[in-house]
Amino acid sequence: MNEKTIKKLQSIVGKSSLLTEKEELHPYSTDETPDVFFMPEAVVKPENRFQIIDILKLANAYKFPVTARGGGTGLTGGSLPVSGGVVISFEKMDSIIDIDNKNRMAVVEPGCKNSTLQESLKKEGLFYPVNPASMDSCTLGGNVAEASGGANTVKYGTTRNYISGISAVSGNAELWKAGGKIVKNATDQILMQLMCGSEGTLSVFTDITFRAIKKPAESIWIIAPFKDIFKIPLAARKIMKISDPTMVELMDKNTMRYCEKYLDTKIQFSDFHQLLVRFDSDSKNLIEEYAVKAGDICLEFGSQDVLSADSAYQQKKIWKIRRSIHDAIAHLAGPVFEEDVVVPQSEVSELIKKAYRISDKYNMPVTLFGHLGDGNIHVNFSKSKNQKSFEKNPVIKEQLFDKVKEIGGKVSGEHGIGITKKTFFAKTIDPGYLKLLKKVKKDFDPNNILNPGKLAF
Amino acid sequence: MNEKTIKKLQSIVGKSSLLTEKEELHPYSTDETPDVFFMPEAVVKPENRFQIIDILKLANAYKFPVTARGGGTGLTGGSLPVSGGVVISFEKMDSIIDIDNKNRMAVVEPGCKNSTLQESLKKEGLFYPVNPASMDSCTLGGNVAEASGGANTVKYGTTRNYISGISAVSGNAELWKAGGKIVKNATDQILMQLMCGSEGTLSVFTDITFRAIKKPAESIWIIAPFKDIFKIPLAARKIMKISDPTMVELMDKNTMRYCEKYLDTKIQFSDFHQLLVRFDSDSKNLIEEYAVKAGDICLEFGSQDVLSADSAYQQKKIWKIRRSIHDAIAHLAGPVFEEDVVVPQSEVSELIKKAYRISDKYNMPVTLFGHLGDGNIHVNFSKSKNQKSFEKNPVIKEQLFDKVKEIGGKVSGEHGIGITKKTFFAKTIDPGYLKLLKKVKKDFDPNNILNPGKLAF
Repeated sequence: MNEKTIKKLQSIVGKSSLLTEKEELHPYSTDETPDVFFMPEAVVKPENRFQIIDILKLANAYKFPVTARGGGTGLTGGSLPVSGGVVISFEKMDSIIDIDNKNRMAVVEPGCKNSTLQESLKKEGLFYPVNPASMDSCTLGGNVAEASGGANTVKYGTTRNYISGISAVSGNAELWKAGGKIVKNATDQILMQLMCGSEGTLSVFTDITFRAIKKPAESIWIIAPFKDIFKIPLAARKIMKISDPTMVELMDKNTMRYCEKYLDTKIQFSDFHQLLVRFDSDSKNLIEEYAVKAGDICLEFGSQDVLSADSAYQQKKIWKIRRSIHDAIAHLAGPVFEEDVVVPQSEVSELIKKAYRISDKYNMPVTLFGHLGDGNIHVNFSKSKNQKSFEKNPVIKEQLFDKVKEIGGKVSGEHGIGITKKTFFAKTIDPGYLKLLKKVKKDFDPNNILNPGKLAF
Repeated sequence: MNEKTIKKLQSIVGKSSLLTEKEELHPYSTDETPDVFFMPEAVVKPENRFQIIDILKLANAYKFPVTARGGGTGLTGGSLPVSGGVVISFEKMDSIIDIDNKNRMAVVEPGCKNSTLQESLKKEGLFYPVNPASMDSCTLGGNVAEASGGANTVKYGTTRNYISGISAVSGNAELWKAGGKIVKNATDQILMQLMCGSEGTLSVFTDITFRAIKKPAESIWIIAPFKDIFKIPLAARKIMKISDPTMVELMDKNTMRYCEKYLDTKIQFSDFHQLLVRFDSDSKNLIEEYAVKAGDICLEFGSQDVLSADSAYQQKKIWKIRRSIHDAIAHLAGPVFEEDVVVPQSEVSELIKKAYRISDKYNMPVTLFGHLGDGNIHVNFSKSKNQKSFEKNPVIKEQLFDKVKEIGGKVSGEHGIGITKKTFFAKTIDPGYLKLLKKVKKDFDPNNILNPGKLAF
């Protein structure tokens, strides 16, 4: 990008919304994915859709890449500018435009943080159930781009179940809109749904409408420590058969130990693998009944004990542990690669077995946690002392992904493809799907301006 | 289509799976949309995906249209062959391939009826919540093509929330696949979601995987008759604020009268507008509590009485009424056009007012019913004796749709665009959206073989 282009960018967003100095650009060169680093040539902070259109017009004229960036919490490098160019940061488009309690709808700018929306809705007695662990930092635009999930998806589904309207600018700088404050739509929803999981490769979002729901009045959590990790998926499946849990989470004993150390707090049964289940409802009786039944099932499958938490204080403590996992592992497990494969629920044990076999064979500790109820397990191999970094061991990834494919799973349940899974995406995806996907990309972004180097593009 | 083409079709599907005689073709020339009729030149009944691929190869070579048809229950003419050609009927691809209780997944052929799946899942203690009123006749392939909803969507969402995997053949005869027996997927879901509501214009489905859920143990219905229809949306909104209903349905007094006559049974308060609310849960106490609160709210807004039904017998009776509405209106209201506009919930009264104004102005009786909880109201104008058929009165449709657009709604909430809303779709849709949609169509179906004359194609 030459000086002329930079000048033109400046004339669009203004001097104070353009970064070009190396040290200013640095924070935009990484996200939370270990070992990946790509410097943008400039960062712009647009304030409205018109500026975004102008940025994309310029990009098409001068053929530079544009990568939209939310909170930078991605775990597959999805928002990193692998070919340089401009990063659009939504720091100045982070507002809630409208909370419409009558229609239980919220209209937001893409840079609005997930937790900001959650808090605002709470004041209105409403609830936005999609709560990624990174909810304090991740943005709602990023959530749409990644079709984000989180721990509540077992009951409530992911971002795609809540998006109701969108305005966006395609790669060739054309504005388009779909949906609105309507909960059902057989008119113009299909391209809106196409955005959920498109990883910033098809359009840049300018505002998004989400549906909210009534917040359940009561909740209860149970935690059951197991010596035998393979009993946990069995207990979980049986619990899901007799109840309607909001969350069904696995935290293996490595996870527990890292959290204990990272939070510097004693965690009960931290040398056990743990099953964490949450129920919510307007009926306290119902969730207590569920919790008792679930507890009995855990004991039947050999859990050491069953702890339950129904006070806000206790629940906050548990949620703090659950949410600290990513950071705890990142800080204490050494360089790791966090995979988030998803498999049919009945195959979770097979997946765990394979992860252990790989761990043994390559002498790389493995930490397992995640959304067991969705079959979506985060598998983290740590670099061991005498080992090259995981990145240099695609053979290990390949072994994991081959197994996942064999048992009917996919390489990503919620973190997306980004950079880190690109090779395996291309390898494991159906060739017919890939061919169509490449065509659709061209419709939205004929010059491959948007986030090049991601997914299959 | 000449004899040679017919011969070739016969060599693909066999003689007994090819219809070419006028009287055999006749049943495939209509669906449940009044006043639309288009004859196919041939009907084929493939038995597997390979035959579908071959049919589409032939269609591309000889340039004839191919229209996939499910149960023929569509209300916008979506499955009618407006340009002739071949109709693919899924009568021989109507099986459940696999009910996988461990993973709570069902794999079906596209011609499998919605109720067949429902019944099979019930035996396994599972539940597929998407229940269009036509569930005994409509097919699951059709449900995907139309992103079908039904009365349970308030709580459970539409088909798009349950599709987990698909195999399909694009318009240019290429097989593609996505998803599987996984409940969460950030790998290859976006094109699968693109199918939900694509109305047979992008691909022909060959098998589909749906997620099922645990069936709630208890349910209760309340029915409240109102003199003033405008109080019903207010009561409904307040009920949804304090509870978690499965269904929130409106049936106006014309609807009630038609049902009474059609079913030849006395319905209580049939000269009132009725609000029908259903709750389900594993907790009987909870839904009884909801029902009591909801009943109080109805009385507060002036309902004449509140009836409740918690026995299977009573509930069946109510559901029978609800499901008979379409047929009752079709038989008794004379030629009608059933619109299924969707508006923000707060605007339902505005919509009803407009429908009444149009009814008065043009002396055409209007019957209103539908999914109030979704803002999705079926507006049925009947032809009055001295009136041209509704089809010849696009000005009336236009007035309704203009209002819908003005208040932030869309022309279709669940029936799709098909033939009957095509003009208004093109007029009311965002131009940027339309442009992209046309490009996407070309990716999947470059020769416009699949269901030409629908949506924007």
